[in-house]
Amino acid sequence: MTDPLATGATIGILGGGQLGRMLSVAAARLGFTCHIFEPGIAPPAAQVANRLTTAAYDDTAALTAFARDCDVVTFEFENIPTEALDVIEAITPIRPGREALRISQDRLTEKNFLQELGLKVAPFADVPDAEALARAVRDIGIPSILKTRRFGYDGKGQVRLSSESDVATALDGLAGAPAVLEGFVEFSHEVSVIAARGPTGEVACFDPGENVHRDGILHSTTVPARLSASQRTDAVLIAAKILNALDYIGVLGVELFVTPQGLIVNEIAPRVHNSGHWTQNGCSIDQFEQHIRAVAGWPLGDGSRYADVVMENLIGADMDKVPHIAREKDASLHLYGKAETKAGRKMGHVNRITR
Amino acid sequence: MTDPLATGATIGILGGGQLGRMLSVAAARLGFTCHIFEPGIAPPAAQVANRLTTAAYDDTAALTAFARDCDVVTFEFENIPTEALDVIEAITPIRPGREALRISQDRLTEKNFLQELGLKVAPFADVPDAEALARAVRDIGIPSILKTRRFGYDGKGQVRLSSESDVATALDGLAGAPAVLEGFVEFSHEVSVIAARGPTGEVACFDPGENVHRDGILHSTTVPARLSASQRTDAVLIAAKILNALDYIGVLGVELFVTPQGLIVNEIAPRVHNSGHWTQNGCSIDQFEQHIRAVAGWPLGDGSRYADVVMENLIGADMDKVPHIAREKDASLHLYGKAETKAGRKMGHVNRITR
Repeated sequence: MTDPLATGATIGILGGGQLGRMLSVAAARLGFTCHIFEPGIAPPAAQVANRLTTAAYDDTAALTAFARDCDVVTFEFENIPTEALDVIEAITPIRPGREALRISQDRLTEKNFLQELGLKVAPFADVPDAEALARAVRDIGIPSILKTRRFGYDGKGQVRLSSESDVATALDGLAGAPAVLEGFVEFSHEVSVIAARGPTGEVACFDPGENVHRDGILHSTTVPARLSASQRTDAVLIAAKILNALDYIGVLGVELFVTPQGLIVNEIAPRVHNSGHWTQNGCSIDQFEQHIRAVAGWPLGDGSRYADVVMENLIGADMDKVPHIAREKDASLHLYGKAETKAGRKMGHVNRITR
Repeated sequence: MTDPLATGATIGILGGGQLGRMLSVAAARLGFTCHIFEPGIAPPAAQVANRLTTAAYDDTAALTAFARDCDVVTFEFENIPTEALDVIEAITPIRPGREALRISQDRLTEKNFLQELGLKVAPFADVPDAEALARAVRDIGIPSILKTRRFGYDGKGQVRLSSESDVATALDGLAGAPAVLEGFVEFSHEVSVIAARGPTGEVACFDPGENVHRDGILHSTTVPARLSASQRTDAVLIAAKILNALDYIGVLGVELFVTPQGLIVNEIAPRVHNSGHWTQNGCSIDQFEQHIRAVAGWPLGDGSRYADVVMENLIGADMDKVPHIAREKDASLHLYGKAETKAGRKMGHVNRITR
């Protein structure tokens, strides 16, 4: 697959959440149709997609039919079972590629990869068992944070070690899953770069955004971020280095800690990213269209920012604010159409144009 | 129906073309689901809508089931058969209301309505038959233009009278349909106002756009339009007068000729309008979301414009330009996902940010 996809082609999306939903709308804007593959019933993405397959990731027949219907397959989350990818890839291309998934599915692999690229990361140690944890605590110290190697998101799969007494029970919280101990980094703030790379190697980055988390979940992203000109350049160079090393096709999110010693890579996500939602109201081409352009082999958009924006997530009971936000000037609501509001569930976001 | 619709409610849309498609995406952004009713197979709107009914407008059972599924019904075109509206309205509200449809479905009714409001329109005369045509030509003169009272769009259903010799055969071209003769207006340019009114009577207008037509089809809309401050005020007042007179709920397009004697109303469209597509890239809330907000009883967006935009339609073979447009900076493509490219068919549009 080297030619750009023609309008009318079908893009498959693994995962039917809000990211798949916004990818589907962006794909439609370029004349593509979308086919969502999602085990859950009535996923948000299906409301704005052309076709839906409801099946488990081990349903080979469903995966095969899905892959045959799609000209290219992409995904909205990184924890897709390897076997499912094998079935799909035998039939149609997956973009971004397997290597990006292999690395980002495992925190230890990801940290080793970033370090080998010469990028700064927080101190870390492999924690396969209790003995290794004791050793890691000696090396890295406390406070530190124990994270499962796989399947963590939005603060899940993490235990914070604040004192020696936390160490003994820390592994219990992870139910025996292999883990990584990470040292704390003294950072002034966190930024993220939403970067894209096309199949011909062209790279385009959106302006870095400044992130605020609450309870382990992204609360807001503000552009422009507080960064010096040289920090801004560094952020883009770091993202480009990662994209090129992975021979990446699509949009990638890179979270960075800003410290006096430079930018430290927190983590990468091989997909569109919550901290890039501001691009929907600040750029001619948003992160979702940028991703679709890349996976479809279209030229990337330039990603220039023409407005200052604050993106705020609407989580759980934040939905009660919607009637008020609807009355605000210069506020764009983006709701996800989820049937049930739950504490901690991302229900939507609002982009406020501040200048 | 007086309370605002809650997210999760279903909005029915009569018509599955590009306007229905963009309405559906806007509705999803506010957390609504859409149900499209369209006689044609595989309509563009269905690609981004939650549900589709494929049935004719005289299929009472299908209309009934559709209406029962919808909390409110709106439409993307004005020529919906009255009987279909009767079936739907017995079950669920239709917004904008029947009066707006009754008036805009018939050029003669529309012109009388506008004139009775005290607005300027081009000279016109009722032409039920050949005798009336001869009389109308004496009164209005030549050049003039003969238009069917009903079902005209994009230059269809029109015969231009350039000389006396055109008169004899003019009615043949309309196949006996009741018609209106319109005099030509000497205008410098055409503008349109995309205006909205909510159920509580609040009115919001987007900045007027300047339209260029080619072969009877809209070619481009440019904002800002060339208008003096007082012309701009007049345009908005005219639109508001029409909205209030119709007790209108939703977005309405008003086409105006700019003349030394003031603004003359060309025609009105009780729906989102091609000349309002620029709002997708120049405003926090576009005409599609504005329409959905109005019909859902939500507060209207303020419609402020934060960019200069030129919207250009992509018609028929213009689709060949898409690969080039995709490489342009500050150009947003909006393609409609139509299976077949035909001469004169609207296939998409591009919004170019010019400042």
